[in-house]
Amino acid sequence: MAELKYEFEHPRKAFGWAARDASGVLSPFNFSRRETGEHDVTFKVMYCGICHSDLHMLKNEWGVSVYPLVPGHEIAGLVTEVGSKVEKFKVGDKVGVGCMVGSCRSCESCYADLENHCPKHIVTYGAKYVDGTITYGGYSDFMVADEHFVIRIPDALPLDAAAPLLCAGITVYSPLRYYGLDKPGFHVGVVGLGGLGHMAVKFAKAFGAKVTVISTSPNKKKEAIEHLGADSFIVSREQDQMQAAIGTMDGIIDTVSAQHPLAPLIGLLKSNGKLVLVGGPPKPLELPAYSLLSGRKMVGGSTIGGMKETQEMIDFAAKHNLKPDIEVIPVDYVNTALERLLKADVKYRFVIDISSTLKPTTS
Amino acid sequence: MAELKYEFEHPRKAFGWAARDASGVLSPFNFSRRETGEHDVTFKVMYCGICHSDLHMLKNEWGVSVYPLVPGHEIAGLVTEVGSKVEKFKVGDKVGVGCMVGSCRSCESCYADLENHCPKHIVTYGAKYVDGTITYGGYSDFMVADEHFVIRIPDALPLDAAAPLLCAGITVYSPLRYYGLDKPGFHVGVVGLGGLGHMAVKFAKAFGAKVTVISTSPNKKKEAIEHLGADSFIVSREQDQMQAAIGTMDGIIDTVSAQHPLAPLIGLLKSNGKLVLVGGPPKPLELPAYSLLSGRKMVGGSTIGGMKETQEMIDFAAKHNLKPDIEVIPVDYVNTALERLLKADVKYRFVIDISSTLKPTTS
Repeated sequence: MAELKYEFEHPRKAFGWAARDASGVLSPFNFSRRETGEHDVTFKVMYCGICHSDLHMLKNEWGVSVYPLVPGHEIAGLVTEVGSKVEKFKVGDKVGVGCMVGSCRSCESCYADLENHCPKHIVTYGAKYVDGTITYGGYSDFMVADEHFVIRIPDALPLDAAAPLLCAGITVYSPLRYYGLDKPGFHVGVVGLGGLGHMAVKFAKAFGAKVTVISTSPNKKKEAIEHLGADSFIVSREQDQMQAAIGTMDGIIDTVSAQHPLAPLIGLLKSNGKLVLVGGPPKPLELPAYSLLSGRKMVGGSTIGGMKETQEMIDFAAKHNLKPDIEVIPVDYVNTALERLLKADVKYRFVIDISSTLKPTTS
Repeated sequence: MAELKYEFEHPRKAFGWAARDASGVLSPFNFSRRETGEHDVTFKVMYCGICHSDLHMLKNEWGVSVYPLVPGHEIAGLVTEVGSKVEKFKVGDKVGVGCMVGSCRSCESCYADLENHCPKHIVTYGAKYVDGTITYGGYSDFMVADEHFVIRIPDALPLDAAAPLLCAGITVYSPLRYYGLDKPGFHVGVVGLGGLGHMAVKFAKAFGAKVTVISTSPNKKKEAIEHLGADSFIVSREQDQMQAAIGTMDGIIDTVSAQHPLAPLIGLLKSNGKLVLVGGPPKPLELPAYSLLSGRKMVGGSTIGGMKETQEMIDFAAKHNLKPDIEVIPVDYVNTALERLLKADVKYRFVIDISSTLKPTTS
């Protein structure tokens, strides 16, 4: 079998679910992982969140996928072994790994705790690691990672709810901080109410903001206000609702990955307001310059966060009891879950119960 | 004559050059101005710069022009009369008026010294003033303006060179400050080398930045480096030059008013870099979201500046001996100058010598 090589690439047998091609269909996969290095933490994967980018990667929609592909970068588990030079973790600790497992550690970005901007950062799956082998994600039984890229999960957070914080959480927390939208009394808009958007609402509320959800779906209003705690809700297709909110927001976190017009959102901003894109539609968006000039507004981007800030985010979430809303599923439901995710049919994040449902096969 | 009404609208006879229609052709125009109010400063116009927006307004390209239209919002002169409650100025003072002559003075923006963002700010020409009459600009013999909107021109600055600072100067100074691009050692790009761009180079150099001019015209290189003091020059159409500069700039001031691609400019930015639009092309620009996400970059806008900052800018210019490069012209050359401006055939700003060349006609 051609796949035998993956079983013997590294000394330790591992097991997960992988896609073999751009159909994106996942099925059981025997592979291997490295021994625990001096600076490595090995942990048993308990839960792994399903991120929307898993969907893009599985289907090679960004053109960079390498097969077999084991997705998963919202990984939470329990430490089983630590390397001789590991300082921060011990066996039994609750830990997690997010979107990165490596970076150069010696560039301007790395020194500034922004490993996510390091040109050589290594993503958690489908990327070439320092040893030349391909990285495999958290839809698998255990992980081995350099401790620098391992996050401590506070005791107050259950592991299943902690998992999505490692990508969805930091993706919205970081821009709220960086773009100064973490001020009590600020009015923050959140566009799109999915995995990212619902966490943006929770973090912004925890920072003391007034939060308005902007969505194409009127049927999300009740849930946004009553369950997630948003202060108000705007249906973006309703001109009168958009009109009434013009010039009222200090900032907007835009989580939408589909093509959409920016000008109406920029119109909702006060002077000096900031529209922050965290979604990333594939085609260029239209940006009318005048919409930024008048009122000195800006459109910014953000993508995950550095390791230090990721730890800060998860500690903040624990302190304020902020948990993503999740639907826990068994691993053999994952292909169905991906189909539902494509239709935004989830409130708000699927999390795979790896430890109870991932059953190794013999190769 | 239908124009007689403009002569008797206000008590004091005034004289200037106006366009009567969207042909934009300027010719002598008798009109009138108000008496010096309690808070007003009246001054004899000595010089008035020709801004690129005069061209748009003369030809009604923004669809908001009111004729007869007397342009000019880079106005420098000498005080001839002050109102009883004027505190900052006396007869004989060197003063100027820029793009605004009024604002509400009671909104959040006005309180924050950002009158330029006041939704009720009144532009210097072609706008309805608080008394219901239309404002006339500085292509005219004298001005009457509320002292709040009058700038003191430092003795060290000649009036002809001071005039363009009141629009072109503040338009580039303000974003360099606001977007934090005023740090010594920063690498700042300047796109377009016209009235705004050449001042952006001078201010950025004065702040201690390394300055790179990005232009479509290779023949501007020698001048940019040898005369204006830029450190380097990139021809934006030369792929290898653009490629070599990828990820090197902390910020870019983009002064171009024509349609142009943003992605290559965003590519020149370091992580956290800022591309600031001050030109304002009429059609939407294409913005690829991924270009902002990776490296947490932003595209911002800026338009002129508040009165306090405009005074700060002109004091800074005087202190550092920063003067725009100008071509002083007589008023009867103005239509030719506008044609040349349209072809960017000026280094770098036309300034009309009003006091020596504007000859009143009798109506």
